Amino acid sequence: MTISPKKAMVYLTTQRIEAFSDGVFAIAITLLVLEIKVPHVSEGGSLWAGLGHLWTSYFGYIFSFIMIGVYWANHHHIFHVYKKSDHYFVLLNVIFLMCISFVPFPTAVLVEYIGDPEHRQAAMTFYALGLFLPAFSWLCTWLYASHKHRLLDQKLSPSYVTKTTKLFVISNLLYFAAILISLWNGIAGLIVCSSLTLLYLQAPSQPTYTDETDAAV
Amino acid sequence: MTISPKKAMVYLTTQRIEAFSDGVFAIAITLLVLEIKVPHVSEGGSLWAGLGHLWTSYFGYIFSFIMIGVYWANHHHIFHVYKKSDHYFVLLNVIFLMCISFVPFPTAVLVEYIGDPEHRQAAMTFYALGLFLPAFSWLCTWLYASHKHRLLDQKLSPSYVTKTTKLFVISNLLYFAAILISLWNGIAGLIVCSSLTLLYLQAPSQPTYTDETDAAV
Amino acid sequence: MTISPKKAMVYLTTQRIEAFSDGVFAIAITLLVLEIKVPHVSEGGSLWAGLGHLWTSYFGYIFSFIMIGVYWANHHHIFHVYKKSDHYFVLLNVIFLMCISFVPFPTAVLVEYIGDPEHRQAAMTFYALGLFLPAFSWLCTWLYASHKHRLLDQKLSPSYVTKTTKLFVISNLLYFAAILISLWNGIAGLIVCSSLTLLYLQAPSQPTYTDETDAAV
Amino acid sequence: MTISPKKAMVYLTTQRIEAFSDGVFAIAITLLVLEIKVPHVSEGGSLWAGLGHLWTSYFGYIFSFIMIGVYWANHHHIFHVYKKSDHYFVLLNVIFLMCISFVPFPTAVLVEYIGDPEHRQAAMTFYALGLFLPAFSWLCTWLYASHKHRLLDQKLSPSYVTKTTKLFVISNLLYFAAILISLWNGIAGLIVCSSLTLLYLQAPSQPTYTDETDAAV
Repeated sequence: MTISPKKAMVYLTTQRIEAFSDGVFAIAITLLVLEIKVPHVSEGGSLWAGLGHLWTSYFGYIFSFIMIGVYWANHHHIFHVYKKSDHYFVLLNVIFLMCISFVPFPTAVLVEYIGDPEHRQAAMTFYALGLFLPAFSWLCTWLYASHKHRLLDQKLSPSYVTKTTKLFVISNLLYFAAILISLWNGIAGLIVCSSLTLLYLQAPSQPTYTDETDAAV
Repeated sequence: MTISPKKAMVYLTTQRIEAFSDGVFAIAITLLVLEIKVPHVSEGGSLWAGLGHLWTSYFGYIFSFIMIGVYWANHHHIFHVYKKSDHYFVLLNVIFLMCISFVPFPTAVLVEYIGDPEHRQAAMTFYALGLFLPAFSWLCTWLYASHKHRLLDQKLSPSYVTKTTKLFVISNLLYFAAILISLWNGIAGLIVCSSLTLLYLQAPSQPTYTDETDAAV
Repeated sequence: MTISPKKAMVYLTTQRIEAFSDGVFAIAITLLVLEIKVPHVSEGGSLWAGLGHLWTSYFGYIFSFIMIGVYWANHHHIFHVYKKSDHYFVLLNVIFLMCISFVPFPTAVLVEYIGDPEHRQAAMTFYALGLFLPAFSWLCTWLYASHKHRLLDQKLSPSYVTKTTKLFVISNLLYFAAILISLWNGIAGLIVCSSLTLLYLQAPSQPTYTDETDAAV
Repeated sequence: MTISPKKAMVYLTTQRIEAFSDGVFAIAITLLVLEIKVPHVSEGGSLWAGLGHLWTSYFGYIFSFIMIGVYWANHHHIFHVYKKSDHYFVLLNVIFLMCISFVPFPTAVLVEYIGDPEHRQAAMTFYALGLFLPAFSWLCTWLYASHKHRLLDQKLSPSYVTKTTKLFVISNLLYFAAILISLWNGIAGLIVCSSLTLLYLQAPSQPTYTDETDAAV
């Protein structure tokens, strides 16, 4: 608010960053369908059986679609509390988008090897890693932006910031735990990841503002 | 209207959801062209014959393009009566987009097997199912949003809501019927689906508002 | 201007249609790069020679990129004079976008067969047809929208409308001529198409309004 | 500012051009992931080894993602000082986008041949060329727009324009030098390109306006 319009103008507005991010999210989420390949039915075979064998593809499609969709929703939710942007924030957001765009690849690896007992575990660990990367870069972006309210609405209550930081740190630890668990047991790691996703599906908490509470900044 | 700006702010605005949905629609609709493969003309063959043999690809492209285009137009049409959004609405919309993004896959299956008498019927049933999924998730989104005018403009006339609900339930039943019919006769199922599309092509009815009619909320 | 806001609301705004169209244009134009395949250099061969052999791919990429880019610029240019939209206009625009999205396919066919003397002519005719389709659907959209100023700014001078209609009809005739010429000589047909593109690259004429001229509607 | 609203209307607004460019950037950047192919592990092999062998793919993905991301950020940064657009500017921007959309191809070539001592150097020169093309078209766009403040904010200080022109000319010379260096030593050329990217990662300078300084236009 102490930023003059002229000065603020030279940074990208958060709306512009959101619009570009939306584009990347929309494309990454839609490219997932390209991983589902039309089955080639052999002589005398059944197309339904062929379509049924693709259950790993459907699973990967649905799972990753919801993961990216949830990240998209959270991206918007959090961007509401970012009031300005700067050069490093833009770069951190580009790195976050790089991690989101990468998700179709570990998904394809998981789909290819989930039915193969020998490589299933490695594929699941790689997938858990693929989910950890956006969570981690998302945390970094938040830590940079929220440090001393650098890019946040100045009126945002410190308790909301602390709570959000805690939430992001914990979810990173849980994703990291999912990687470790998947090294021991692939299925268990995937179940932890799924539960985390379900956690994210919960309605996020509402930001609180100091002029709404009885103050005390 | 009784929502304070601060509180409303934490939910995604319907404009933002529309912009993201537009992106997914635009990509899903454009990816359809990737399913049309350049023909490999054998020695002494004719390129025109090769291009002609792709009629199933052109058919699938045009049919699915119009289907997704019609859903896009309806998405916008209906979003005009949604006045706010909440967390579950965002998730339902993501699931709807997941069904829209999936359409290129049943299209590819149909294109591959429509010329094969043995598998044509299964391919058509699968395609009808692929058209039913967005219709069904679209109905769920509407039922959630319109229940007690939860996310609708409060002035929207109850008769418009009832009429729209009826329309969506009937079109779902018809899509479901198309699946059943295609189990018995693939071509017939496809004709039912096409007719439904033609129905959607009709101009949708105008929303009416209680302050425009002689009231009675 | 005599349309009440409530009534106008139920149609898609032209901005929304533009935004969706932009998405389709952006994807169709970017997908062109997927047609350029990394060359596989044989033992002892040179990568530069391999990259050089792809000149047909580069040619197709550049030519179709500029074609779609020019259509995009014209789409926006003309949308400035559309003041409202209706159901049929939306459908015509979807069909136009279907033709634009299709362009990468005839481009891929041209790239594959332009170096093959036997099939070059057929490939060029097919490509000319691929350029004619968006021109034709674009003309249809214009004729529908401009008929009795149906969707145009009411103040737009009739002379501008007549001039634009003439321009679109002539360019359609020329594209059609290019198809016919390419049946006789592929290279000649392609040269006609290129010249048409160069014509489009000229700055379009400015719309004139009746309140700017000495009136006479 | 001396442009009447009616007249200005016939050109695309810079916002529209930005929105379309954003779409192309978002797609080009997301398509990069399609170049990373799921490894096929041979009998008795390790999936981790297979995933490890893809380091060239990861390298190409990250490098090109950051390059395109940096161009996107610069595109927006510079578009803030463009106040209007004209027909040639739109065409120059389309050519710039053509160069950006092309980046995934030299990236794929680099990824394919960076591990092959025979072709590594050619691949790197081609990649350096792929990075030079957007830099060069970007410079052309700037020179056209800034010539006699043609499309710039009239109040933008001439010193900012001169500084920016110098910066763009120098970075073009450096990219060109990178091409020449890569002809002599591929790795050295790539290091120069990387350093240039790091340079771009620096916060760009703030535009200055004549009414902010003590004047003297």
